[in-house]
Amino acid sequence: MRNNFNLQLNELHEDLKKMGTLCEDCITFATQSLLLGDTELGERAIQAEKQTDIMEKEIQNLCMRILLQQQPVASDLRTISAAIKVITDMERIGDQGSDIAELIKKTQIPFEAFNSHIAAMADCIIRMVTGSVESFIKQDAKLAKQIADLDDQADDLFIQIKNDILDMMSGKTKHDRAFGEKALNTLMIAKYLERIGDHAVNITECALMAAGSQNAQQE
Amino acid sequence: MRNNFNLQLNELHEDLKKMGTLCEDCITFATQSLLLGDTELGERAIQAEKQTDIMEKEIQNLCMRILLQQQPVASDLRTISAAIKVITDMERIGDQGSDIAELIKKTQIPFEAFNSHIAAMADCIIRMVTGSVESFIKQDAKLAKQIADLDDQADDLFIQIKNDILDMMSGKTKHDRAFGEKALNTLMIAKYLERIGDHAVNITECALMAAGSQNAQQE
Repeated sequence: MRNNFNLQLNELHEDLKKMGTLCEDCITFATQSLLLGDTELGERAIQAEKQTDIMEKEIQNLCMRILLQQQPVASDLRTISAAIKVITDMERIGDQGSDIAELIKKTQIPFEAFNSHIAAMADCIIRMVTGSVESFIKQDAKLAKQIADLDDQADDLFIQIKNDILDMMSGKTKHDRAFGEKALNTLMIAKYLERIGDHAVNITECALMAAGSQNAQQE
Repeated sequence: MRNNFNLQLNELHEDLKKMGTLCEDCITFATQSLLLGDTELGERAIQAEKQTDIMEKEIQNLCMRILLQQQPVASDLRTISAAIKVITDMERIGDQGSDIAELIKKTQIPFEAFNSHIAAMADCIIRMVTGSVESFIKQDAKLAKQIADLDDQADDLFIQIKNDILDMMSGKTKHDRAFGEKALNTLMIAKYLERIGDHAVNITECALMAAGSQNAQQE
């Protein structure tokens, strides 16, 4: 029975890794689409998001099967219920990546001047997503805390991008509607990235929950 | 055993209702704080959000207890796992309400000209939150669909507010930094409200999942 549980837990971890990779793909394609002005990459982000939706349902069903067949208790039950929460966050990460791609399809690419800040923010966010999923799978509380700390960096970059936009808006010249649209959309894209960081933090909280119960069991 | 399950399910429903009311309070206080420029109401929104965090943990523990003691199968298991998802969304609703209140504390209140659109959007969103929780508790698929349909209205109001901001930004006069800050913050507040609507739609999806499995059991 325990052996069976471990087999299913391995399957769950493999699936979570795959879903994590899809989330990273989605963010990478969306931000590359943004920075290179390549709408085809945006399409790939949208496709990756559709696959995260499918994986969420598959993993949810796997969790249900584990609960039903293994009727886990204590830390095992907590791990499975934390996994149900983790996939909810991963699915939302895909949604936000796809939202970025959709926004780029509808509008002009944002100000080139912002590219370095947006690229830095995307880089930080991708590290957060990868690390948060890893911290959950490995039940690594230390890694989870490191990843949560990165969120401050993401928040600072968001504020920096917002200030960049404000500087441009309050410049010497009067701006047209297209400028305004660019400004608002750039802010939204930065906000989507920041929100992805929040989801990664949620995943690290699930990792801490699972790691805590694991430690409690080992004691 | 079945009787016990029903008692615990009732407790779960009562707790979900309480948490739903806290979410509504949070949105109401936050938007009233915005519309009336009353920071004390913002403080009440932040307090309501803290209580949703506590309730999320309590309900999560109750769900764990039900899984452990009742080891539910089929539609009962699906209902409990859907409830775990529902409280995740409700907690996020509280977060967004609190984000609005925090934004208002730091900045000037937005343009009075937008108050009617923001008020209409808040009204729509509160109806969505109340209805979505009700649809989950009553496992009412019809109500869940009605609530999901309201999301289009919320999305339209968001676009309207964005256009209002663009109109003001591309007006005849050059604007200062304070104007820009107001414009960007108003957009963010509208975005937070729209995001709350998305969470309500997620809750209706959980309701449909639970109602579907209920119907399947009755057949």
